[in-house]
Amino acid sequence: MEQGMTQPAVRFRGRLKKRVHPVVVAHITQPYLAAGSKLAEYHYEVHDAHVLMLAERELLDKGSCATLLRGLARLRAGEPDGTPFDPETDLYMNMESRLIALVGDLGGMMHIGRSRNDLYATVTRMAVRAELLCVLEATLGLIGAALGAAAKQASTTMPGYTHWQHAQPVTVGHYLTGVSQSLLRDADRLRAAYIHTDECAMGAAALSGTSFAIDRQRVSALLGFGAVLENTYDAVAARDYLVEAGASLANLMVTLSRLCEDLTIWSTQEFGMIDIPEEFAITSSIMPQKKNPFVLEHVKGRAAQVIAAATAVPTVLKGTSFSHSREVGGESAAGIFGAFALTHGCLAMMAELLPALKFNTELMDRRAAESFCTVTDLVDLIVRRKRLPFRTAHHIVAELVNAVHEQSGTVKDITPTLIDRIARSVCGQELDLSPSDVRDALDPRRNVAAREIFGGPGPQALQAMISRQHSRRDEYQRWLASRRAALESARAERAAARDTLLAQS
Amino acid sequence: MEQGMTQPAVRFRGRLKKRVHPVVVAHITQPYLAAGSKLAEYHYEVHDAHVLMLAERELLDKGSCATLLRGLARLRAGEPDGTPFDPETDLYMNMESRLIALVGDLGGMMHIGRSRNDLYATVTRMAVRAELLCVLEATLGLIGAALGAAAKQASTTMPGYTHWQHAQPVTVGHYLTGVSQSLLRDADRLRAAYIHTDECAMGAAALSGTSFAIDRQRVSALLGFGAVLENTYDAVAARDYLVEAGASLANLMVTLSRLCEDLTIWSTQEFGMIDIPEEFAITSSIMPQKKNPFVLEHVKGRAAQVIAAATAVPTVLKGTSFSHSREVGGESAAGIFGAFALTHGCLAMMAELLPALKFNTELMDRRAAESFCTVTDLVDLIVRRKRLPFRTAHHIVAELVNAVHEQSGTVKDITPTLIDRIARSVCGQELDLSPSDVRDALDPRRNVAAREIFGGPGPQALQAMISRQHSRRDEYQRWLASRRAALESARAERAAARDTLLAQS
Amino acid sequence: MEQGMTQPAVRFRGRLKKRVHPVVVAHITQPYLAAGSKLAEYHYEVHDAHVLMLAERELLDKGSCATLLRGLARLRAGEPDGTPFDPETDLYMNMESRLIALVGDLGGMMHIGRSRNDLYATVTRMAVRAELLCVLEATLGLIGAALGAAAKQASTTMPGYTHWQHAQPVTVGHYLTGVSQSLLRDADRLRAAYIHTDECAMGAAALSGTSFAIDRQRVSALLGFGAVLENTYDAVAARDYLVEAGASLANLMVTLSRLCEDLTIWSTQEFGMIDIPEEFAITSSIMPQKKNPFVLEHVKGRAAQVIAAATAVPTVLKGTSFSHSREVGGESAAGIFGAFALTHGCLAMMAELLPALKFNTELMDRRAAESFCTVTDLVDLIVRRKRLPFRTAHHIVAELVNAVHEQSGTVKDITPTLIDRIARSVCGQELDLSPSDVRDALDPRRNVAAREIFGGPGPQALQAMISRQHSRRDEYQRWLASRRAALESARAERAAARDTLLAQS
Amino acid sequence: MEQGMTQPAVRFRGRLKKRVHPVVVAHITQPYLAAGSKLAEYHYEVHDAHVLMLAERELLDKGSCATLLRGLARLRAGEPDGTPFDPETDLYMNMESRLIALVGDLGGMMHIGRSRNDLYATVTRMAVRAELLCVLEATLGLIGAALGAAAKQASTTMPGYTHWQHAQPVTVGHYLTGVSQSLLRDADRLRAAYIHTDECAMGAAALSGTSFAIDRQRVSALLGFGAVLENTYDAVAARDYLVEAGASLANLMVTLSRLCEDLTIWSTQEFGMIDIPEEFAITSSIMPQKKNPFVLEHVKGRAAQVIAAATAVPTVLKGTSFSHSREVGGESAAGIFGAFALTHGCLAMMAELLPALKFNTELMDRRAAESFCTVTDLVDLIVRRKRLPFRTAHHIVAELVNAVHEQSGTVKDITPTLIDRIARSVCGQELDLSPSDVRDALDPRRNVAAREIFGGPGPQALQAMISRQHSRRDEYQRWLASRRAALESARAERAAARDTLLAQS
Repeated sequence: MEQGMTQPAVRFRGRLKKRVHPVVVAHITQPYLAAGSKLAEYHYEVHDAHVLMLAERELLDKGSCATLLRGLARLRAGEPDGTPFDPETDLYMNMESRLIALVGDLGGMMHIGRSRNDLYATVTRMAVRAELLCVLEATLGLIGAALGAAAKQASTTMPGYTHWQHAQPVTVGHYLTGVSQSLLRDADRLRAAYIHTDECAMGAAALSGTSFAIDRQRVSALLGFGAVLENTYDAVAARDYLVEAGASLANLMVTLSRLCEDLTIWSTQEFGMIDIPEEFAITSSIMPQKKNPFVLEHVKGRAAQVIAAATAVPTVLKGTSFSHSREVGGESAAGIFGAFALTHGCLAMMAELLPALKFNTELMDRRAAESFCTVTDLVDLIVRRKRLPFRTAHHIVAELVNAVHEQSGTVKDITPTLIDRIARSVCGQELDLSPSDVRDALDPRRNVAAREIFGGPGPQALQAMISRQHSRRDEYQRWLASRRAALESARAERAAARDTLLAQS
Repeated sequence: MEQGMTQPAVRFRGRLKKRVHPVVVAHITQPYLAAGSKLAEYHYEVHDAHVLMLAERELLDKGSCATLLRGLARLRAGEPDGTPFDPETDLYMNMESRLIALVGDLGGMMHIGRSRNDLYATVTRMAVRAELLCVLEATLGLIGAALGAAAKQASTTMPGYTHWQHAQPVTVGHYLTGVSQSLLRDADRLRAAYIHTDECAMGAAALSGTSFAIDRQRVSALLGFGAVLENTYDAVAARDYLVEAGASLANLMVTLSRLCEDLTIWSTQEFGMIDIPEEFAITSSIMPQKKNPFVLEHVKGRAAQVIAAATAVPTVLKGTSFSHSREVGGESAAGIFGAFALTHGCLAMMAELLPALKFNTELMDRRAAESFCTVTDLVDLIVRRKRLPFRTAHHIVAELVNAVHEQSGTVKDITPTLIDRIARSVCGQELDLSPSDVRDALDPRRNVAAREIFGGPGPQALQAMISRQHSRRDEYQRWLASRRAALESARAERAAARDTLLAQS
Repeated sequence: MEQGMTQPAVRFRGRLKKRVHPVVVAHITQPYLAAGSKLAEYHYEVHDAHVLMLAERELLDKGSCATLLRGLARLRAGEPDGTPFDPETDLYMNMESRLIALVGDLGGMMHIGRSRNDLYATVTRMAVRAELLCVLEATLGLIGAALGAAAKQASTTMPGYTHWQHAQPVTVGHYLTGVSQSLLRDADRLRAAYIHTDECAMGAAALSGTSFAIDRQRVSALLGFGAVLENTYDAVAARDYLVEAGASLANLMVTLSRLCEDLTIWSTQEFGMIDIPEEFAITSSIMPQKKNPFVLEHVKGRAAQVIAAATAVPTVLKGTSFSHSREVGGESAAGIFGAFALTHGCLAMMAELLPALKFNTELMDRRAAESFCTVTDLVDLIVRRKRLPFRTAHHIVAELVNAVHEQSGTVKDITPTLIDRIARSVCGQELDLSPSDVRDALDPRRNVAAREIFGGPGPQALQAMISRQHSRRDEYQRWLASRRAALESARAERAAARDTLLAQS
Repeated sequence: MEQGMTQPAVRFRGRLKKRVHPVVVAHITQPYLAAGSKLAEYHYEVHDAHVLMLAERELLDKGSCATLLRGLARLRAGEPDGTPFDPETDLYMNMESRLIALVGDLGGMMHIGRSRNDLYATVTRMAVRAELLCVLEATLGLIGAALGAAAKQASTTMPGYTHWQHAQPVTVGHYLTGVSQSLLRDADRLRAAYIHTDECAMGAAALSGTSFAIDRQRVSALLGFGAVLENTYDAVAARDYLVEAGASLANLMVTLSRLCEDLTIWSTQEFGMIDIPEEFAITSSIMPQKKNPFVLEHVKGRAAQVIAAATAVPTVLKGTSFSHSREVGGESAAGIFGAFALTHGCLAMMAELLPALKFNTELMDRRAAESFCTVTDLVDLIVRRKRLPFRTAHHIVAELVNAVHEQSGTVKDITPTLIDRIARSVCGQELDLSPSDVRDALDPRRNVAAREIFGGPGPQALQAMISRQHSRRDEYQRWLASRRAALESARAERAAARDTLLAQS
């Protein structure tokens, strides 16, 4: 074949005689090429796997395949030097043109039995799969940090809040294991998203497969996929895995934003419960006294960004043809890698921030003791000791709180005598509680200690919970390691197959 | 205890002396009561389970518990007659007030060891769990309908489209199994969402559990939950299951919207590939010729509604305290039941519509035969027969298509002679293909038949795929049945425990 | 004409011989009829206007038109009794069928020169226009409430917060006029949305107008529209006004959510700056001490609902044909009235809550005085008195704050002596500030008083601002009144034209 | 002052002694600095204006101000060479540090009477304002292109579609002026968004203004703002203009997406109504026959991206304190410039694509003539000629269409005889229409010609509409020019004031 033949491929336009309009180059092909180039490594992996399979299936002779693999290696190494990619076409056609430049028209053989549709579908899945593992790892990192902090603060009491009002005493450890329990479910969702991502589209070609006798399972295995995405129409059309991945990130970021809201308010001068470490704060350009917890704010704001990025995916896909198009194959993934990066960054920052937080334990203890957050246990005490209905006991204590409030008193002013006075007016009887019972009921530490209920803040319940969460975390850690091992083993298998082939020819 | 005591509970305001402001009644308490009342049945289930546990744990004597259960039964049956609920308070406080009216102040004992926080958290999970099973059932129904239609249209060829342009021949069956394969992943996500929903919050009380020695596992089991949601802070704070459920609905609806986009365009006069059954169409009030596929449009529009409803959940939760509040406990779920209803309705309509579609098979066959959608196989033929590089063969055929186009010809005008003329000009050689090879390559039915690749449209590949999908569908069907059985068995266990208790007292 | 003719119209299906499928009735036609019926009044207004125009243009004789108008009046009054609407068709076809039942086949004349496409497009605009005026009115109500509260709290100092950290002293009045200034922009956007809504689609018919010589301007005027929506294709296709209306609501609700976040935190025990009035709070079913600011939480959550509802509109429309369809004509508006209701309710509640808030002025003053929020003025003092560069002065004061912090001191411990010690170490010179200058700089009330800058918290600046905002509010108030007058005047014109016509025949 | 003093400013941390944590540098300060640097030019403009005002108000002596302005000019020119910005702090602090390095500690004087809060608030407004003008210009460009194409295709008839079914004949020009009418409303919204953006926050400082006697109006005027944003709390807190700008982009993109959906389907082989110019298409890597309209798909997908970016803004802001924070000042704008870029690109591409479209007028005419899209005029004819009620006439024609369909006929088969046969069966009477009346009614060109209704497709109505739209477009064009002139004039005023000052010192 004459040399001239490679010419059209240099700027692949097929039957189209006109070049891409410059305005389209500026707004579509060039930015896509730039973004796509970040995933070039995955393309090479697919090319290697595909060519190896072509050789094994004898769809192309071994010598040609060896030449292609050698050419691909040179391409990957940056050859030919100094030629910028052609911004008028996409990454794959640029790669193929260069391969043809390096190995001759044989380079045009690499595309047998496939199409860009299944190629890009597969490459995006490989990239998303890698991101999911990274985010899962960072999530497990943050869970570890939270459990570590929880263990340290297992006995620091604080007022638990509902509606941002003092509710009942808990411990910092109890709060943090609440957050980490939530994050463990996020880990679960990331794993599920991975499994739906980890299916190989190769061999679907444009949408209907190919009449070449390719081996889809082999290519899938060489790329470390968990399964072949069977129906070839679905293989090029489906992007539900992106919707799912995005939703799993949004869900996770929402939990982080809630944690950050709490830490922001806890670090106000008024709450004073925690000090944000200086490394995670900024000051003001004009107000010298300032220490602003800006990291927390960025995490909250980025939760919104990730929610929006996650919403973009189904919004792009809504109402498109169930097939391949640029909406499906291009735009649907446009924001997902940004969402991964934001999420990963937030997890990484929070995993450093949490262990560095200073808890003002003395103040928190005091506030728990001085607020009315213990009076529910007084209700319970009345129910237990006097067998009054819960609602009646609640009524007595509500009036009691009002009475103390009216005299600008604190919880310390609650005495058996006062209780009896209120009880008489409410239900016509005195309760005759012992001073020590009342004192114990209103002691936040005893309050917490009495909550050894499954999942409660009681010391043993908490330790058991921390230990169970560590076990679950370990389980995800193992699964993560097994996935990484599978990818590594596929890489090794490709290398071995490649070496064998090159040795033979 | 004197009668007067029940008074405060009638309109429960505890220590608050003023009534709820009328503007708040109009915009919050009244609409919430109305919406919440739809879930009253779940409240009764929780009350029964909780009271049974109180009896078993001897936190309340058996006689009192029996009285409570009898009172609850009367309440459920509509007693006391004719009293409307008080719109100034919530469903639970209304129930409790009525119970007190029926059984006396003992009614105030039911709330020992719990709070509205864990109660509503649990009730919402029960309601969502039921909805998830219904939507899963409807999804499996649509998958069944798609597989049935696919089997019938297994050999109806049509042009497969990418970018809404003719791509390569496929069959209707191949397309439909692509859609059903996608829906099977939706089934998987619904199942995962169920598992995260199916955790019991009871016993978390306000947020820190209780000092009463309640049995959280027992209540959970009596309500048929798969697990207890351990950390009690998380139990009242977490709504990630709603985010996940919403996202799974949005993902599913996107797939339906894409199917509907295809069917809408296929049913245009221009495509004419399908006839929408009259039962799923409307005419115009002024244009008598009209048959508008309005169901398809509603499904597409509702995909957008469900995306928005799904987005509302994380948007509500973003930046809230990780705890209980009305944002978390109330607003986060405000749109989710509407999203379930829309999704369920769309699945139900599509499951009826799909089997009723009329495919104009003759026209579709003809269009596949007359378009250029088969020429990729001509490229493959050239590669196979002449060992030309794929890219070169592609180049030849591209020029061939242009040549035919220029003479306003069709694919039928492609002959070995014409091929040779083009090949000569492109690469200086003739190809000498046999007329029968060319004819076969350009025959859409042979095109399809040659695609017996795994997941391809070839008849055997398709049959195997249909059969595998049926197996997967059966698996979800069995899981669904097992979940329903578990809920039924919990119901039976409650009934039995209740009968035993009532018999004893 | 014989009686039998009315039969087909009873259940209008035109050329379609089969009834609507029950599953479609359940999920589409029935719920649409129910929702649409709320807008019936607007339909009657359009019918009247259209028939009056037909008479004026002599497209139908006066007698017939009079009969139609009389029939419409009876319809509106509920005739014929007791027949429920047919759930298989839409509101208009139900109305027409009934009209035919009342006045005979002449009823079928009302639809000359129009279609349901322009009818529903117009009706929805009328409904949205009414909602926009209501929300504008409620917005102006809340602005009034905010300005009233601002005037009362014009001199209550408080620490202004940025990043939830003490920044600089402001007054409550300054904060509240910040919020009301923001709301005035919302009023502006509501007005702009109104103007784009207030265009009449009548006469567009299906999409191409009609060959009857109707008078679009006349119908538009009779319905009080500001303009005719000229291009008829656009008239049935456009729903950008819904996108805009939704966005204006979301924008407004975001401002409310931010106000509510502040009020929520200010009402914590720790901040203690405000007391939420009891009428806007709830207590807990188990924690008797609780007073939860639930209204604020619902407003915050509903901001998210309204954002989602606003997003639903463009999401529905995205990728639809630029024409009429059920996505465009039906689904796009499905959530908008809910968004209006939520927004209206939140505005109404906040307008009652704001004036009822109790500000703990003494505590706020004290906190402003005891925090470091005044030290920026110390920086400014140093710059002014000593001509030191701002950054240098900032540096000195930053070190000063640290020095006081280290000794657990407060702002009261800042003395000229201490300042000099720090200044020496920072820049090698003493500053020699007078004690009274330092005291004044650190006095929050003087801090505020010194900020008579345009838009600042200084007393005169604030009064001027309140007064300017009242003027702007009045302007919107007048515009609102003028719009209502225009609608009323159109109503009167319809009535007069109707009376004249009925009198003539 | 000694040299050492500049040291702390190099890495401005004020009272914070520890450096920013590396993980925070990686995920926050570094990326923000990179993104922020794109807006550096606006910072310089604000610095110049601020320093000029300081001189005019004699808050700083003229000589110092001149030195600052000279230093700023050197900074802007890239001095000091080769020092990269410090990634641990923000753009402003980097600028100030460099300025101090260039002009000495005097550089620390520039920040008198302001803060980063008002600075960044102002800079973002300047950037958004510039983007709004660009997008408005591009919108007007596309409107011009649409009107040009509409004029060319004013008399090309085509079937108008509703529900993607043939509705009634229109012209291409009518369709395109529908789209441009919609875009004119977008222009209006962009203008409104501009007005709300074009308010100057300078002088608000941190949130409470300053005690320096600065002149906010002067700075505002020197920066070409339309108004000062009065209340200083609002000035740093408000980002509603971003919500509005985002919503206006989303609204616009939705219209583009709808146009693109139509063009996509019209360019299918089946519709064949238009040819997408090759410069706007791509082919397939394996299917040589392909010409894929990929630009249209990207525009549709990007509409979804822009909807999501627009939603991100209120989602970020929801529930934040009404004040300054990093959520408000940083994250809220994170996606807006990307949305502008996408929108601008799509407008630019469509403005090139529209005039280059090839309309297959002959085929469109024929299809309009052969479909049943004209039969509504037959209904109208019957109503006009025979005074039958519209509904009855509709009924007759519906049956007529069915009758022709049953015999696989076309609209050409409709004759007076057939009409009479059907009319007899429907209403017992013959209609006796003249053959020429029937032929005219069914002629799409006459159909269109008869629609000279205001806004209709009739030739004169269309020409009038094109002309009115040109006038409105001119009006926006003039407004755009006036805004650009105002910005230019402010620039000139700054330059003149600067020259005067520099000349004086």
